[in-house]
Amino acid sequence: MEKSNGHHSNGNGVSIDYGHSNGNGHSNGNGHTLVMESVGCLEITGGITAPKGFRAAGIHCGIKKMNKDLSLVVSEAPATAAGVFTQNKVPAAPVLIDKKQLETSNSFRAIVVNSGNANACTGEQGYADALSMINTTAKALGVQESEVFVSSTGVIGQYLPMQKITAGIAEAVSMLDVEGYSSAAQGIMTTDKFLKQLAVSCTVGGKEVKLGGMAKGSGMIAPNMATMLSFITTDAKISSDLLRASLKKASDRSFNRITVDGDTSTNDMVIVLANGLAGNAELKSESDPGYAAFYEALEILLVRLSKMIVLDGEGATKFIEIEVTDAASENVAVLAARAIANSNLVKTAIHGEDANWGRIICAVGNSGIDFNPADVEIFFGDVPILRKNYVINFSEEEAKKVLEQKEIKIRVDLNQGESSASFWTCDLSKEYVAINANYRT
Amino acid sequence: MEKSNGHHSNGNGVSIDYGHSNGNGHSNGNGHTLVMESVGCLEITGGITAPKGFRAAGIHCGIKKMNKDLSLVVSEAPATAAGVFTQNKVPAAPVLIDKKQLETSNSFRAIVVNSGNANACTGEQGYADALSMINTTAKALGVQESEVFVSSTGVIGQYLPMQKITAGIAEAVSMLDVEGYSSAAQGIMTTDKFLKQLAVSCTVGGKEVKLGGMAKGSGMIAPNMATMLSFITTDAKISSDLLRASLKKASDRSFNRITVDGDTSTNDMVIVLANGLAGNAELKSESDPGYAAFYEALEILLVRLSKMIVLDGEGATKFIEIEVTDAASENVAVLAARAIANSNLVKTAIHGEDANWGRIICAVGNSGIDFNPADVEIFFGDVPILRKNYVINFSEEEAKKVLEQKEIKIRVDLNQGESSASFWTCDLSKEYVAINANYRT
Repeated sequence: MEKSNGHHSNGNGVSIDYGHSNGNGHSNGNGHTLVMESVGCLEITGGITAPKGFRAAGIHCGIKKMNKDLSLVVSEAPATAAGVFTQNKVPAAPVLIDKKQLETSNSFRAIVVNSGNANACTGEQGYADALSMINTTAKALGVQESEVFVSSTGVIGQYLPMQKITAGIAEAVSMLDVEGYSSAAQGIMTTDKFLKQLAVSCTVGGKEVKLGGMAKGSGMIAPNMATMLSFITTDAKISSDLLRASLKKASDRSFNRITVDGDTSTNDMVIVLANGLAGNAELKSESDPGYAAFYEALEILLVRLSKMIVLDGEGATKFIEIEVTDAASENVAVLAARAIANSNLVKTAIHGEDANWGRIICAVGNSGIDFNPADVEIFFGDVPILRKNYVINFSEEEAKKVLEQKEIKIRVDLNQGESSASFWTCDLSKEYVAINANYRT
Repeated sequence: MEKSNGHHSNGNGVSIDYGHSNGNGHSNGNGHTLVMESVGCLEITGGITAPKGFRAAGIHCGIKKMNKDLSLVVSEAPATAAGVFTQNKVPAAPVLIDKKQLETSNSFRAIVVNSGNANACTGEQGYADALSMINTTAKALGVQESEVFVSSTGVIGQYLPMQKITAGIAEAVSMLDVEGYSSAAQGIMTTDKFLKQLAVSCTVGGKEVKLGGMAKGSGMIAPNMATMLSFITTDAKISSDLLRASLKKASDRSFNRITVDGDTSTNDMVIVLANGLAGNAELKSESDPGYAAFYEALEILLVRLSKMIVLDGEGATKFIEIEVTDAASENVAVLAARAIANSNLVKTAIHGEDANWGRIICAVGNSGIDFNPADVEIFFGDVPILRKNYVINFSEEEAKKVLEQKEIKIRVDLNQGESSASFWTCDLSKEYVAINANYRT
């Protein structure tokens, strides 16, 4: 199967301009432009169906009043798969079932997803309903039930309208198309303000390998639906074990490094399908030739989708990167960066464009890491705000110039080692409160 | 020394009405009325000087443009003392010094506190300045430097105006008075909207023992000053060890069970002085007669001061009690209650008077505790919202009636054991964002 939309949109192989990443008429950006770090992989047009052998569809079946609410992604060849799931102790039925699918099978063909209803806190009936979604999808596609994943996002504590969903699955199967990637990305949205999808390619052992992905975050108006879902496809040939390790590592550096409000939903999941149609020699170990390129492409794809989720954070007016450098270990850097990114006081200060560095060092002090406060240095963009031994000597005007931007980078140098990590978040605005106070009833 | 304001304001020994707790012309409440649980101790008028042998003063020395900014509390007799301090890894100079005082001395006479400047992130000079405050206070009082505690609250990262403070300490010493409790409570405020003080009495071995306390929380306008400070006095005779254990336990059940925004400041501290002038037989062990009454009075005093801090939380429009019941252990109950109380999504939903129970069970799922979600029950006031096995059958109207109140109790029953714990918080409003976005510059 040849893809008609697989042309490179960026031929220089050096940098990808975030704001222009999707040339198919659906803008991924909302006016922000994030220039990515230099990479060895290329951005290509398309999304979840960019890799060979994938088709997708997104339709409206009636769970929501309007807008697409059911999506299907199908691989024409059996695929290996891996998944990472919410750590919340109240996992929704689809989370429980997909974990079991991954434990008991190693060949997969499809993912069926509904939006508008999370199928969480729905007990035995919810579990049966999720199994029924798998059963209906498997039958319609002529594949095994063990080959299908199910996912849901939306309101907690309501039963799925199964009649509508069953009819919807049949319709989605009939609509499957290599051009269906944007429809599928629409079908998983709840109140996201823009589509979140991307495709990249890299070279593995002389073969072009493509990766595609779509994601949804927490949008406006209905924040109870604050599920993070992402589905990734690739035509790479890669073993289940290595795919699992790759997804875990890349998720830890992308989806696990974003925060909008610090709450983890009951439904979060990332699933990747790898159908091997690129024809590369199977990747089995991290030292295999070409694996580095594949992993880099995967991590970049996930980081880019993660940043899109933050950009679309509830009430967000600013995109904030928190980078912690010269830490004793990557884990120390992550803990410090997460504490800063989750601090309401830091997020409101940045919303108000206030160079309130005291809140940043205070957040590091609450992060649980060991450090010497007198060694800490803080930079807003390139402007040094706090130097070692609490030396403060910055121009409020210069700091303000950085904070007035839509994209703000804050760097905290611990001066204790050589590790670093970035975390991405958004500001906390009055609109966040308005959105979250006035939902549901 | 006989106290002129030590009359009982509540003679029935049964319940204390929170909203009318301070009969000296300074209202502690802002229109809310919280009825306390039944207790064996009595509320009395006064604050930090209600116990025998304590005098206090609060004056304006010029750290702030206006309003009192320096307070002094002095015991006429040597007192045992105990303290609990911020867990933040960026402790302010006074925190470091007071910890050392407690390690090296067992007799104390005074606490000197300034507001308007936190003396945090001020390095060696800040440390020397805090020692200088102790030195000046000790000399003026004719006591040892080892007998004085120092405390600061206010802006981070600025040096103290020592000339003003030195002059201020002399003035405060000259103003010391048994009637100075409200002035002292004013002197530790930053942007608190109301005074936070209280006094109670109980009977220990036939002697009347009094406890007084004052506290400050995070007020409006200048949230960088979000320090929690509390100072407690008592005329009980009690050993250092038992006083320390009592303060730790009571703080864990009061100040450690409140949250406004989940950020722990660099300056938080609670210090208690016990000068023994009540004449009771020294309390040395938890099994000593009268200790139970003393501990109960102490815990109630701290809980009441804690609730005042929440009521005065930045932008707060509602006081929320989260009670987790039938937990496997008290620790489990605390973890679950804290996760709910810190969830922005829960706090905004309550701000919007939305019976969004899904966010509550989701927060429990993120708390790290082990539990069976299907066993969870949730009540808003007396209204059952979620019953076992995800049975939902409540009237939105009834739930709304509860949520429209200024004081809201949410109970989460884990149905797994016999322990329980309460946590107190406030809602998250647009005003919180406005306050915190527009400070400093």
